[in-house]
Amino acid sequence: MLVTFQGRDDGEWAIESVTLLAGQNLPTAPRLAVIEKAVPDPKPVSWQLRGTVSNLRYTTRRERSALQAVQAPLTRREATSAALIPIRKSNEWWQLAQDERREIMEEQSRHIAIGMEYLPAIARRLHHCRDLGEPFDFLTWFEFAPEHTGQFNDMLLRLRQSPEWRYVDREIDIRVSRIAADRAG
Amino acid sequence: MLVTFQGRDDGEWAIESVTLLAGQNLPTAPRLAVIEKAVPDPKPVSWQLRGTVSNLRYTTRRERSALQAVQAPLTRREATSAALIPIRKSNEWWQLAQDERREIMEEQSRHIAIGMEYLPAIARRLHHCRDLGEPFDFLTWFEFAPEHTGQFNDMLLRLRQSPEWRYVDREIDIRVSRIAADRAG
Repeated sequence: MLVTFQGRDDGEWAIESVTLLAGQNLPTAPRLAVIEKAVPDPKPVSWQLRGTVSNLRYTTRRERSALQAVQAPLTRREATSAALIPIRKSNEWWQLAQDERREIMEEQSRHIAIGMEYLPAIARRLHHCRDLGEPFDFLTWFEFAPEHTGQFNDMLLRLRQSPEWRYVDREIDIRVSRIAADRAG
Repeated sequence: MLVTFQGRDDGEWAIESVTLLAGQNLPTAPRLAVIEKAVPDPKPVSWQLRGTVSNLRYTTRRERSALQAVQAPLTRREATSAALIPIRKSNEWWQLAQDERREIMEEQSRHIAIGMEYLPAIARRLHHCRDLGEPFDFLTWFEFAPEHTGQFNDMLLRLRQSPEWRYVDREIDIRVSRIAADRAG
C-alpha cells in the first residue's frame, strides 16, 4: 500500500511544529494531508513524501507476536495528536549485511523493545521509501492522545541516543493535530 | 539504482525462449533491452518490468564475505548468454516475520549456499520491485558463458525443488543471448 504525505494549505492535520534533527529541512506548510489513494488528486503542495507499507524487515516471529498482543490501530477517536518523522540513513548503514543491521538495531539499540514499552498509547505505521527513489528511507507515522505527548517524547529521546541513530543522516520531526471535522477543508 | 527491462523489437539481447513456470505469462517480444537510466527513452514495448538494486535482505556478513571472494561482475566478454527470471511470492510469504523467511530461504532451502556453488561461472544481479507496485517481487538477472548453461539449469532445478519455492506463485524464465555489436539496433 502506497501512502502519500503532503504539506499543503488544506488537509485534516494542522502542522504544529517542525523540528530539524539532521540534514536538510522541508519547506513550510500549514497543513498535512495523508493520502492512501495510489494517485492523489492534483493539488498544489509545499512538499510531498511517499512510502509503502511493506513486509517486516527485522522483526522476528516472537517479537511480532508480542507487538500484536498490545498494539493499537490508527485512527482512534482519542488520538488527536500525531507525528510524521521522515528519516534517512547513511550509505554506511545500507552497505551493512542483514545480521549487522539487526545487531545494531535491536541487540545494541533495543529499537523494537523500546517501542513496545509505549504500546498501546502510541500507535505507529512504518512506510518504506528507499527503493522508490524518495529523499528519505522511512516515514514513520505515530498517533496518540495529547496526554501521551510526554511519553512519546521520552521514547524518541531514548531511540535518538541509541547506537542505531549514529547512522541517521537526515531526520525531521513534524508534529500535527487533527482538525475537527467541521473545520477541515 | 533503478533498472528497466523491456521486451521490444530492438535491444542488445535476442530472446531465445520464454518458459512459464507459475502464474501468468508475459506478451511475446523478439528482443530484450536492459536500461539503467532512470527514465528510459520512449519506445514501443511489449512489456516492461522495473526493479531497484537494493540493500541485502537476508545475507549475513559471513555469507557476503564468502560471496564477494568468488563472485564475478556483469558484462564479462565471454558471458554472451543471460537469463531474466521475474518471480512473485505469495501473500503467505510476505506475512511471515523476518526470521521465518530467513529460516525457509537459507536454513531449509540453502538458497545462498546453492547459488555460491555456481560462482564465478554464473554472475547475478537481484532487483527488488515489490514496493514499486510492479507485477513481480524480484527480477533476477544472470549472465554466463554458453558452455555453462547446463550448470545454470542444474542450479535452477535445485532451487525450484526447495521449500522456498512453495511460496513462488508467479515465475517466468526468459533466456537471451547477446547480439554482436554490429547486429544490434
